[in-house]
Amino acid sequence: MRSGIEYKVGNMIYLSEAQTSKLISHQLAYNAVKQAFVAAIADKASLFPVVNAQGANPDEMFSLKSAATPELVGWKTGSYWPDNHKHGLPCHGTNVFLLDPLTGMLQAVIAATTVNAYRTAAADAVAVNYLARLDAAVLTVFGTGHQAEYEVLAVCQVRTITKVYVVGRSICKAENMAKRLVEKGINAQVCDAKSACEQADIIVTATTAQSALFEAEWVKPGCHISAMGADKVGKQELPVALYQHARLFCDFAAQSIVIGEFQHSRNIAITEIGRVIDESVLGRQSDDEITIFDSSGIAIQDLFVASHILALSQS
Amino acid sequence: MRSGIEYKVGNMIYLSEAQTSKLISHQLAYNAVKQAFVAAIADKASLFPVVNAQGANPDEMFSLKSAATPELVGWKTGSYWPDNHKHGLPCHGTNVFLLDPLTGMLQAVIAATTVNAYRTAAADAVAVNYLARLDAAVLTVFGTGHQAEYEVLAVCQVRTITKVYVVGRSICKAENMAKRLVEKGINAQVCDAKSACEQADIIVTATTAQSALFEAEWVKPGCHISAMGADKVGKQELPVALYQHARLFCDFAAQSIVIGEFQHSRNIAITEIGRVIDESVLGRQSDDEITIFDSSGIAIQDLFVASHILALSQS
Repeated sequence: MRSGIEYKVGNMIYLSEAQTSKLISHQLAYNAVKQAFVAAIADKASLFPVVNAQGANPDEMFSLKSAATPELVGWKTGSYWPDNHKHGLPCHGTNVFLLDPLTGMLQAVIAATTVNAYRTAAADAVAVNYLARLDAAVLTVFGTGHQAEYEVLAVCQVRTITKVYVVGRSICKAENMAKRLVEKGINAQVCDAKSACEQADIIVTATTAQSALFEAEWVKPGCHISAMGADKVGKQELPVALYQHARLFCDFAAQSIVIGEFQHSRNIAITEIGRVIDESVLGRQSDDEITIFDSSGIAIQDLFVASHILALSQS
Repeated sequence: MRSGIEYKVGNMIYLSEAQTSKLISHQLAYNAVKQAFVAAIADKASLFPVVNAQGANPDEMFSLKSAATPELVGWKTGSYWPDNHKHGLPCHGTNVFLLDPLTGMLQAVIAATTVNAYRTAAADAVAVNYLARLDAAVLTVFGTGHQAEYEVLAVCQVRTITKVYVVGRSICKAENMAKRLVEKGINAQVCDAKSACEQADIIVTATTAQSALFEAEWVKPGCHISAMGADKVGKQELPVALYQHARLFCDFAAQSIVIGEFQHSRNIAITEIGRVIDESVLGRQSDDEITIFDSSGIAIQDLFVASHILALSQS
């Protein structure tokens, strides 16, 4: 029964990229993604099959990722048109579409290209906050792209990070990224993979890699690792050998073992982070254990972040 | 090469139901759907897997149907929230989303609930215009719902219909439908299935049936049949026995044989209507033959109709 609820037939709300990029913050994304991870493990949450579609040319791609929870129903579209940069436009684009869960009517369209970077980084920050040691201070990041930078900034919101090591295949790109972080007041420098891992309290991987970025024995006891990159069959960032010495977490197990980092392992126990957040399962159980979180990315995150943005825009 | 083309980074355009229901017409839908059927058979056209999703309750459903052609990229969402009528709201809702094929950016959101009824009926009208005898005058319609009425009105645009027979399981609903058609100046009356088929020059089925609505031997030589209802596994409106005595057409063969009317037959030759429209294949080849068109409904129709509406709104 839903009596007493007001059924709206109002106009659709559109929030442009200019609006949403002003409204988004690490704090908003963190709160929304934390809620989303709890919502994702509820019985009534559903993730539907992902559509990987394309434009007229096969290298132009867009995806439709839909989900439903009792509070939120909708989907996210991500587009990648590789020639856009030739025309001074971003290659990636994201929009989130919310249906009114009471009526199925289109409630809002939320341009979310910048929001998407915060949303993905917020998954990392939630995992770090629930799984990393409280005294974690040294952060190593693999990846020198746009997203890697957001990951560092989001992690810096939840731990007192005194040192960031940037590891990249291109020294030039790694140096540029370190420079950008320094300009934001972060003590960052380029480092080689082995040395950076050996010193890290937290390792974040934000790459498009298809094989392990480092060796299992380089990781010190007590380290937390957030693997952000794997979201397709064939992608991999972590050494499988690490799994037997670590406690494993993910956003959504059914997806993580198919397209996420844990596609490369079998017969392993993986805990959904929502169960740690809602306190039904313990997260880190000792200062010495290694924790791994795999973010494969779920549409429920997008719906919650979009919904928080929408609420803020109307407040 | 796409040099010389203007790359737009403009605002998204939203057309509300109030706007689109004023802009839509049988003529616009006819022209757009005819173009869509030709576009659908081109090498560079793609239809992507359909997502059948749901809301928080399992009887609340929405679908995402995406497609791409060189001119148009996007998707349609149909929603069905069965309790809406209790709140004075329509249960069905449709929106079409267009991406800019040059950049992948969200170009327009077009509320298309009324438009959708015209779009589906237009497929019928295109088939009738290309396949029915020019002197076809008696139309029999199976189905007494909202959509059946649109089908009759669309067919009346392309043939001089002097008589419409309405066949329905509920006499009461059939009489109401006949009355509504009479109020629109159409010579309509309720009739039993056998007698209605025996007299029909054109038969249109617009039902949710899961078995044949009439018998093959009731259909007279020269009749054209448009089967509009089947769009899911398990649906059926026509007697399979009719196929061996008829020439068969559809909107999109790969879909028609899976979820359309022709899912119930094997080893039959089916011609896509686009090939008749572009004159690469003959349609009706004699006054005596029976022609059957199966409309399973394709997202390319939705993109073309939405695009025509968008163009009209900007003119």
